Amino acid sequence: MDHIFDTLFTNADIITVCDEMPVIKGGYIGVKDGIIKVVSEGTPKSHSAKEVVDCHGGILMPGLINTHTHTAMSLMRGYADDYALQEWLHEKIFPLEAKLDARCVTLGAKLGFAEMLRSGTTSISDMYFFQPQVASIVEEVGIRASLSNGLMSFDKANFSYETDRATQETLELINSWHKMANDRIRADVSIHAEYTSYPSIWRYVAKLAKDHDLTLHVHVSETKREHEECVKKYGLTPVQVLDREGVFDNNALLAHCVWLTESDMAVLAERKANVAHNPVSNLKLASGIADIVAMKRFGVNVSLGTDGACSNNTYDMFEEMKLSVLLQKAKYSSATVLTAYDAIKMATVNGAKAQGRYGQVGQIKKGLAADIILIIGEALNLYPNFDPISAVVYGANGKDVALTMVDGKILYRDGEFMTIDTEAVKHGIAEYVMKKLF
Amino acid sequence: MDHIFDTLFTNADIITVCDEMPVIKGGYIGVKDGIIKVVSEGTPKSHSAKEVVDCHGGILMPGLINTHTHTAMSLMRGYADDYALQEWLHEKIFPLEAKLDARCVTLGAKLGFAEMLRSGTTSISDMYFFQPQVASIVEEVGIRASLSNGLMSFDKANFSYETDRATQETLELINSWHKMANDRIRADVSIHAEYTSYPSIWRYVAKLAKDHDLTLHVHVSETKREHEECVKKYGLTPVQVLDREGVFDNNALLAHCVWLTESDMAVLAERKANVAHNPVSNLKLASGIADIVAMKRFGVNVSLGTDGACSNNTYDMFEEMKLSVLLQKAKYSSATVLTAYDAIKMATVNGAKAQGRYGQVGQIKKGLAADIILIIGEALNLYPNFDPISAVVYGANGKDVALTMVDGKILYRDGEFMTIDTEAVKHGIAEYVMKKLF
Repeated sequence: MDHIFDTLFTNADIITVCDEMPVIKGGYIGVKDGIIKVVSEGTPKSHSAKEVVDCHGGILMPGLINTHTHTAMSLMRGYADDYALQEWLHEKIFPLEAKLDARCVTLGAKLGFAEMLRSGTTSISDMYFFQPQVASIVEEVGIRASLSNGLMSFDKANFSYETDRATQETLELINSWHKMANDRIRADVSIHAEYTSYPSIWRYVAKLAKDHDLTLHVHVSETKREHEECVKKYGLTPVQVLDREGVFDNNALLAHCVWLTESDMAVLAERKANVAHNPVSNLKLASGIADIVAMKRFGVNVSLGTDGACSNNTYDMFEEMKLSVLLQKAKYSSATVLTAYDAIKMATVNGAKAQGRYGQVGQIKKGLAADIILIIGEALNLYPNFDPISAVVYGANGKDVALTMVDGKILYRDGEFMTIDTEAVKHGIAEYVMKKLF
Repeated sequence: MDHIFDTLFTNADIITVCDEMPVIKGGYIGVKDGIIKVVSEGTPKSHSAKEVVDCHGGILMPGLINTHTHTAMSLMRGYADDYALQEWLHEKIFPLEAKLDARCVTLGAKLGFAEMLRSGTTSISDMYFFQPQVASIVEEVGIRASLSNGLMSFDKANFSYETDRATQETLELINSWHKMANDRIRADVSIHAEYTSYPSIWRYVAKLAKDHDLTLHVHVSETKREHEECVKKYGLTPVQVLDREGVFDNNALLAHCVWLTESDMAVLAERKANVAHNPVSNLKLASGIADIVAMKRFGVNVSLGTDGACSNNTYDMFEEMKLSVLLQKAKYSSATVLTAYDAIKMATVNGAKAQGRYGQVGQIKKGLAADIILIIGEALNLYPNFDPISAVVYGANGKDVALTMVDGKILYRDGEFMTIDTEAVKHGIAEYVMKKLF
């Protein structure tokens, strides 16, 4: 029998993240061939579907979009907490990362993807190593991912694009993986950061972005020191000097941006650049609190990210949603300066914009790809539910996610992963990674 | 057969919160007659116990102590989010609270207690209405609670202790409930706040505390406005003016304390008073970030609280632990200024001190009451587990709690509540509370 839908979600409140009607109280969603075909209030006339998911009054919303992460750092979760940033990086993280190989990174990516799917994340912007190998894991697991390996170089004299691993991975991503798996996988290009490279590299990466129409992912003004040293070195802020070299000419995704000036924000708004805000990581590494209210006022698109698990220590985007709003309320001494709905947007539609995927994902809307999560309605922390948006942002955490669908496929449901054998992943980490790295 | 233990927990990492050995990697705990009889590394020689709980490598730690809450505000969760404090209080909360009756409050308390037990909280300091009725719910449910109803009066001319509801509830708590249920239930006394009453009331409550040797619970310097208006009115800060009237002569528990001066901190240290820090609520209502690092430097005992569910919106103490440390790192631009272990202490042993229960609960130690929680070790967000303390503070949330024991009795385990029928509670709220209040 030919069904109208592959999956029909019934009996749910729906957070659409469409401003004309952000919430549908009591509705349904029909999915066919990976696409959202119907979104409506009430109950469907026909239940013709391969699978009907009765949501029992739960909340459906777009999958969360984590626009700045280093997924495989799941391997180092809790390994180096409560260290100062420089010590954390140079004594703990860099020495470990030097020992990473593709097997470590793919195992770490699988562990991280499982945690992400379990907590409602459906799409990520990941900057790390061994990305072509990670791309094959993304293909297998079914998550949506924009992958990059940030170019960095401290030794200009001996640097060669031909031998640089990040460059070669980037080219391989572009040639072999970009827009593969029904456009679930994208190649981004990436400059690691202003302070870890120099203008000729920035121009090279910016040109790659332009030639192939790719998103450019870069760490910017995460710490005060990095920001100020750039001003000392170039007479320009990181945003200004990168802009001078054309880094923001294509779709750009700037992670952190804790120390932006107002003129930086004006530049980013002008360039239609996107900022990935990482509130938990910025607190944990004592970087500061980014002024996302000001960015919003300037018209900069702000999305959310968890950063790596070593500076967080989870991939739970619900924490980022809640904290992003709470921090600005305290920063501005105003309980109304940012609302729960702002957080929902940052974690969904703004993330889609940041990834260059606006109109593909990030909203519950006819014609968009079916990246959908179900939040259980019976959880004590979500009861009573006066407003689904408040319930999600202030009441929920990732453990309240009951089902995660990407591109029309259910990848996680009620404790079960459809595409990841988490026990095998843990076994691989215990047997291989722990012995190699620690 | 006479067993050595009632409950024997095996195969766990144990966070003892005893400074001489804060963590035991791979150990066991034996409980008999509600008391911790054995804490040890390794495996027990005898498994003679009514019940053996194999923890499968999970983490055991003292139950969390929530030292400032208004439990029954669970009923208003999400009802008034993103409002400014004055509007929130006067237009939304106070009108609702005027409609509360004992049935509403006891239903709200049950809902809140269920959420607390589910997320690992075993002891609370609750300030709210209809407390003698709540005490009977505490007795039934099995949680540990210090209960008070804060005296307040805006109409000095017509105030009478004989007709004041809070006073009468306080006296009833002292006479009928103090140290009942094997000392699980305690009567606290409470002044709601400096700005909602006046010196004769403060002296009255302070005398009650002294006469009956009770903890005195009071909101202090939550908002800048309240703090400054007190200085204008009395020429003294709230801490100074309350201290002048002897409010801190007995064990005192001050909630919030966002705007304390350093001389306030010196007073509190001198008086051995305790501060209940509420980081989520203080952000959500835009009150600010309390300087708990400075309080610690002055030697003030700082514990944690969630405040009511209407300003949070959960009773998940893991959020408070994580945020309390993260906020100070950002405030001080130092990733080392406060550590995960500080958060564990604030949520356990410091809470016990604040409640006047030091030596009774708050640590895993021979002779203490068995208030113990088990955090599942297999959770993806807790793997790998290099350090149980980091895992709990930075990786876990309340949903990772698998078992909650109070006074030797398992009250929650793997989704099941032993003493609360959560469906009946929800039914009662839907049928009675929703119709009465909203």
